[in-house]
Amino acid sequence: MTSTNRKVIVVTGASRGIGLAYVRHIVFLSKLDFQFDIVMTASKEQPLMAEFDKLLNEINENGLNHRLLPIVADLSENVIESCRKIKEKIIETFESKIDTVLFNAAVLTPLKKVSNMSDDDYKELEKLFSVNLLSVIKLANELIPMMNIIDGKFFFMSSGAALKGMSACTGYCVSKAGLNMFCQTLALENPHLFSLAISPGPVETRMQQFIRNYGHTEMSANDYNYCIMLHQDGKLNNTELLAAKFINACCLLAPREWNGEYLHIKDEKAINLINQYEKKFC
Amino acid sequence: MTSTNRKVIVVTGASRGIGLAYVRHIVFLSKLDFQFDIVMTASKEQPLMAEFDKLLNEINENGLNHRLLPIVADLSENVIESCRKIKEKIIETFESKIDTVLFNAAVLTPLKKVSNMSDDDYKELEKLFSVNLLSVIKLANELIPMMNIIDGKFFFMSSGAALKGMSACTGYCVSKAGLNMFCQTLALENPHLFSLAISPGPVETRMQQFIRNYGHTEMSANDYNYCIMLHQDGKLNNTELLAAKFINACCLLAPREWNGEYLHIKDEKAINLINQYEKKFC
Repeated sequence: MTSTNRKVIVVTGASRGIGLAYVRHIVFLSKLDFQFDIVMTASKEQPLMAEFDKLLNEINENGLNHRLLPIVADLSENVIESCRKIKEKIIETFESKIDTVLFNAAVLTPLKKVSNMSDDDYKELEKLFSVNLLSVIKLANELIPMMNIIDGKFFFMSSGAALKGMSACTGYCVSKAGLNMFCQTLALENPHLFSLAISPGPVETRMQQFIRNYGHTEMSANDYNYCIMLHQDGKLNNTELLAAKFINACCLLAPREWNGEYLHIKDEKAINLINQYEKKFC
Repeated sequence: MTSTNRKVIVVTGASRGIGLAYVRHIVFLSKLDFQFDIVMTASKEQPLMAEFDKLLNEINENGLNHRLLPIVADLSENVIESCRKIKEKIIETFESKIDTVLFNAAVLTPLKKVSNMSDDDYKELEKLFSVNLLSVIKLANELIPMMNIIDGKFFFMSSGAALKGMSACTGYCVSKAGLNMFCQTLALENPHLFSLAISPGPVETRMQQFIRNYGHTEMSANDYNYCIMLHQDGKLNNTELLAAKFINACCLLAPREWNGEYLHIKDEKAINLINQYEKKFC
């Protein structure tokens, strides 16, 4: 294994959901001839370290040569300090440039109509913008100089909610619409890198569970019933499948001319990419 | 004059530019059979009070019956306190419900590539998001209960930059993309009100001057030269004309089915609306 076969990957919000599924996918997808150095960030220490320990055991049991770096960093406040900490720990630990960053960390709450927001809900909204948007800009700012200059890639976990608003989810929808635009400006400013905002469609994560449990009091009947229907009719994507088939397909196969765009998993371009990926790498 | 002919209008960022032009337009457009109670907010006391005094003199000289309420409120920090202050002053001063709010206050800076942002630039970016986005959500939250339930209208000053990103203007572009989405979710949650995000196209304001003066070091040659060309070729809209022909046309004539949409001054729908407005009210 030569050193050029090592890839440095950064995943925010890596302790569960799509972030964790993506890490597990790239670690255990044996058909890729890479050794990964994976930076996993999360806001809470306990779940991150639990997943880190589990992954490390599996990596050792399988005789693999991947390395993991867990970093606890709360992106909802002290954004400058948190992002700098992430950068510094990467520099201390891994010797190569970064190949891929998956900006995945995000929060949904407050799940409230604008007219019903209390001051506490508004403060929660400020934190939502820190996690979903401002820390993404700051972390990109810190990591751009560390990116692989030939093949550095930024992926932004977007949502269908970036285009089509949903009642009681103002902060989430607004932040995802903003994230798509950030991908666009970042691509304009950094044509040597590759930036793509990707929407996995509705996925069975804690967010969807939260909406089903608590959405009925604030959401419109229309929006709430749609989320219930997605679950009842089995239309929520499985996280592992998603990570395997979509994010990595984008990472390995998305053409440079998509730089700055937004891609939904059900777009024809995405479906073709996933088909190619399955033939080559699954 | 009956009391139903009084209209309460709130304009943020009313001490200059488009906000001030809109106030001047509705005050001195004699063909409208309304008396206006106009709330003018701005971050700095001196320019706001100077414009307030000037307007008040002109109103008195012309024997008009409009009332003005200037409120100094910095929306870049202490957002909860600033928005609550605006609400409380309106309640103290005017007896009727609010008819129209023009969310116009916005900042452009930091004018920096993401990769070049210092910590101070990032702090400026946080303030940009407070002014352009978070305070808009909080002020809407405070004012919804005070809106005229039959005919209350929210207008959001958007920009072409909400759809097409511009280098070195990440914060501005991202906030305007977010603002369009906020208009959408607000409309979903409040179908009894009317919300519209409007883009006046490139306007000769301090923002464009600032870009021409300081943009060359950070913007791409392409984006910078476009702004220079707009100015040299006389393609920047005049603020007064804009306020007269577009914002008020939307306020008086936009149909309810546009609730939640984004409208650019050069869209065919906008051009038709402005034509109708000119025939009826100019």
